[in-house]
Amino acid sequence: DRPFALIAGPCQLESLDHARMLAERIAEAAEGAGVPWIFKASYDKANRSSLEGKRGLGMDEGLKILRAIREEFGVPVLTDVHSEAQCAPVAEVVDVLQIPAFLCRQTDLLLAAGETGAAINVKKGQFLAPHDMGNVADKIASTGNTRIMLCERGTSFGYNMLVSDFRALPIMAETGYPVVMDATHSVQMPGGMGKSSGGKREYVEPLARAALAVGAAAVFMETHEDPDRAPSDGPNMVPVADLGCILKGLKAIDALTKH
Amino acid sequence: DRPFALIAGPCQLESLDHARMLAERIAEAAEGAGVPWIFKASYDKANRSSLEGKRGLGMDEGLKILRAIREEFGVPVLTDVHSEAQCAPVAEVVDVLQIPAFLCRQTDLLLAAGETGAAINVKKGQFLAPHDMGNVADKIASTGNTRIMLCERGTSFGYNMLVSDFRALPIMAETGYPVVMDATHSVQMPGGMGKSSGGKREYVEPLARAALAVGAAAVFMETHEDPDRAPSDGPNMVPVADLGCILKGLKAIDALTKH
Amino acid sequence: DRPFALIAGPCQLESLDHARMLAERIAEAAEGAGVPWIFKASYDKANRSSLEGKRGLGMDEGLKILRAIREEFGVPVLTDVHSEAQCAPVAEVVDVLQIPAFLCRQTDLLLAAGETGAAINVKKGQFLAPHDMGNVADKIASTGNTRIMLCERGTSFGYNMLVSDFRALPIMAETGYPVVMDATHSVQMPGGMGKSSGGKREYVEPLARAALAVGAAAVFMETHEDPDRAPSDGPNMVPVADLGCILKGLKAIDALTKH
Amino acid sequence: DRPFALIAGPCQLESLDHARMLAERIAEAAEGAGVPWIFKASYDKANRSSLEGKRGLGMDEGLKILRAIREEFGVPVLTDVHSEAQCAPVAEVVDVLQIPAFLCRQTDLLLAAGETGAAINVKKGQFLAPHDMGNVADKIASTGNTRIMLCERGTSFGYNMLVSDFRALPIMAETGYPVVMDATHSVQMPGGMGKSSGGKREYVEPLARAALAVGAAAVFMETHEDPDRAPSDGPNMVPVADLGCILKGLKAIDALTKH
Repeated sequence: DRPFALIAGPCQLESLDHARMLAERIAEAAEGAGVPWIFKASYDKANRSSLEGKRGLGMDEGLKILRAIREEFGVPVLTDVHSEAQCAPVAEVVDVLQIPAFLCRQTDLLLAAGETGAAINVKKGQFLAPHDMGNVADKIASTGNTRIMLCERGTSFGYNMLVSDFRALPIMAETGYPVVMDATHSVQMPGGMGKSSGGKREYVEPLARAALAVGAAAVFMETHEDPDRAPSDGPNMVPVADLGCILKGLKAIDALTKH
Repeated sequence: DRPFALIAGPCQLESLDHARMLAERIAEAAEGAGVPWIFKASYDKANRSSLEGKRGLGMDEGLKILRAIREEFGVPVLTDVHSEAQCAPVAEVVDVLQIPAFLCRQTDLLLAAGETGAAINVKKGQFLAPHDMGNVADKIASTGNTRIMLCERGTSFGYNMLVSDFRALPIMAETGYPVVMDATHSVQMPGGMGKSSGGKREYVEPLARAALAVGAAAVFMETHEDPDRAPSDGPNMVPVADLGCILKGLKAIDALTKH
Repeated sequence: DRPFALIAGPCQLESLDHARMLAERIAEAAEGAGVPWIFKASYDKANRSSLEGKRGLGMDEGLKILRAIREEFGVPVLTDVHSEAQCAPVAEVVDVLQIPAFLCRQTDLLLAAGETGAAINVKKGQFLAPHDMGNVADKIASTGNTRIMLCERGTSFGYNMLVSDFRALPIMAETGYPVVMDATHSVQMPGGMGKSSGGKREYVEPLARAALAVGAAAVFMETHEDPDRAPSDGPNMVPVADLGCILKGLKAIDALTKH
Repeated sequence: DRPFALIAGPCQLESLDHARMLAERIAEAAEGAGVPWIFKASYDKANRSSLEGKRGLGMDEGLKILRAIREEFGVPVLTDVHSEAQCAPVAEVVDVLQIPAFLCRQTDLLLAAGETGAAINVKKGQFLAPHDMGNVADKIASTGNTRIMLCERGTSFGYNMLVSDFRALPIMAETGYPVVMDATHSVQMPGGMGKSSGGKREYVEPLARAALAVGAAAVFMETHEDPDRAPSDGPNMVPVADLGCILKGLKAIDALTKH
């Protein structure tokens, strides 16, 4: 019943200056609303819809930026890992390792992540039922690391569409681990634009509000100063200029729910 | 942005005494939370999973009870209609005609309901997209009657399961008509018990909370003094003893959202 | 293990001359392939996506045409009914009453249809699991009429999309009743064109072939001389000019399966 | 329009003797039906539902067995790879590298597999639309390797359930690459048994028949001498004793379709 945390940042790292600029604006919005936050950004988009999608800066460059943000802003940082080999070096820099949804059943990746001792945010696969995330958490916990978060990010619903089942949050919470609502990817329309994914950013705020009304421990929300020009997930990122206003609304619901 | 209303009552009418007892307890809970309410009950369950399911008291007996509740409690009443012929006589007694989800595309029923001038609550079919409910509302509005409510009650999601898409509420609200969240049937597991439907009443409250966090105009919630012995929809009805507590939580979220 | 039958005709009746012209062409194709057939057409489209969709000729005019086709061609005829009151008069003319998918759980309609003694083709609701069709058949059979066919026509799969599960055919066949594959409506995209449904007629033939490979007793296929100008279901009707060729392929698969 | 091939074997390798025994029995069935075949088995089950599921023999031991089967039986062999590093060493032994469904969007894995020059069988992710597999194939083809097969193995349909959309086969065939029907995993019920996946092997044969009726180039079917005791995917494997009879039926349909 602790107040909710925000996990926010751009979908992918673009440069140190860009990360710094966004971190400043997120910090301002989060502090204005009294919301603790974690900086999130990816150094590699390893599963783009097509080869034409930008991959990102790579691990070395990306970790340098994440380390800089972490130090300059005194904020925890989160990024996703895609192979066993990445877990240890990434965990030297970041506070939270994130397991991508497509990879949430890859046993070796879960074990390698767990063994770093870092906190782990596992996205629920689009193909997985919420009551099956206990098995996923157990794989990580078998390493002795129980700093686990389970993250809703939408479930396959026909083609090129996801749906977020709000029963999933209390169901996953039964594991005892904190539940994160990824309001950005839940409104994604995977592959919906042919060579890339579409999305509907106007539903990010409603889904985040709904999640806090049912007791989510954290909200994940990607943001950008100009989402329509972002290299990935633009259609579902929230403009950073709107973040402060959204967070105040979320904070009020969370305060009610967790009172 | 008016405060939310509650639509509540037993799934099906059992007797005048039973309806009166429940109405008293709902009134107490609703008034305690400062929530205006509408009494809901069905006189005929026209589409049970199997022939073994109880059908109900029938229209004549049912309308007598609804009229009595309406007069004794000074509360609007709602019931569902299943054919064109039922619309006019039912509308003489009740304030709100409800169109069952399976029948939400039956043009003649929508027109006959509209022509009564009564308010109409149309359930979104389990097979229908929220953006297609505009066509449904247009059928009713073609009669000159625009006292229309659009109601989310879950969408088919695999077999014997529904999911409530919380994007559906803002999408249906774009029509300009008030949107109702049926938190009872959204947690139904249709046909899930072989000869009858299952459900999970523990998710009724979370879904109702989530709906008010995204601005629903009303919440529909079936209730019973002993749901496990109710003749229909027992697994997803909320015990009336819990109603007051649930409503206070809902009222607080609604007040925040609509402030 | 009897050879498969074809249920074919236009989605809706347009005129006696039109019905006669199509019946002639269907007869020619069916006889050329050695396939017994039933003429199908609707006199009322009672659940169009929007009010703008054409409803049809009405019951009186429609039954006259169906009676004429039945007599002139010596072929059984099938049409759908939408209310209890329609069952008896329609059954005086047609050989097979069809229950629309949206209405497949309406107990009174099923009983009224059963009581006519006519054969009944019940479409599986888009919201229903195949293993739940036994309850539907039991409702009809409770009248003493067991001349029942169960018809697959697609299941809700996300929004504006259906999917045909080919496990559904053997599952429904476990009831002992013959199973019909509606290859036309299985490729429908309900509401997919805003004011009307879309569809993909290029998948009608593959789905019909697949159905006969798993032992379907009949194939339902709507057809038109110019589908793109048909008043309803144009996108998923097969041009009648292609019917003969399709049927020959189907007949060969059926002969293999039922040998 | 070449005759279909069979991809068959146990879900996971158990020992050389076991592999040899099954290969003998598959060879006998396939030769009896005149069907060319590929031996399939996994050396590592990298994404079991839970940690309790058996992983397999590992890469070194597994490749030895696959090499032995390949040499003794003169049959091509197929196995799945889970990381970039595995692709080259595995491709030294096997004829076909298989990309698991969960990993079908992992760009680096697709590229590494493509670069080996081996034939690649990519399973369509349970979360992916068939029309999005063109992007997946393009990633592999960018390496210059166009020896690609696209494999249907079911799409997420609610929780713990898959559905095979038979439109997917012609849709994927539009890429020009051969399409494989995995009839074993299409009837899987993922996570359906709590700690492991369930399934319904009685639908393997119908789905395989349906796939050949719509022109599939190959059928993938796991088999075991005693499926209920197999270490993985038992509920959906076909007893090897039934294989000959099934293949004769499949061969007849294929001959009709490809005539």
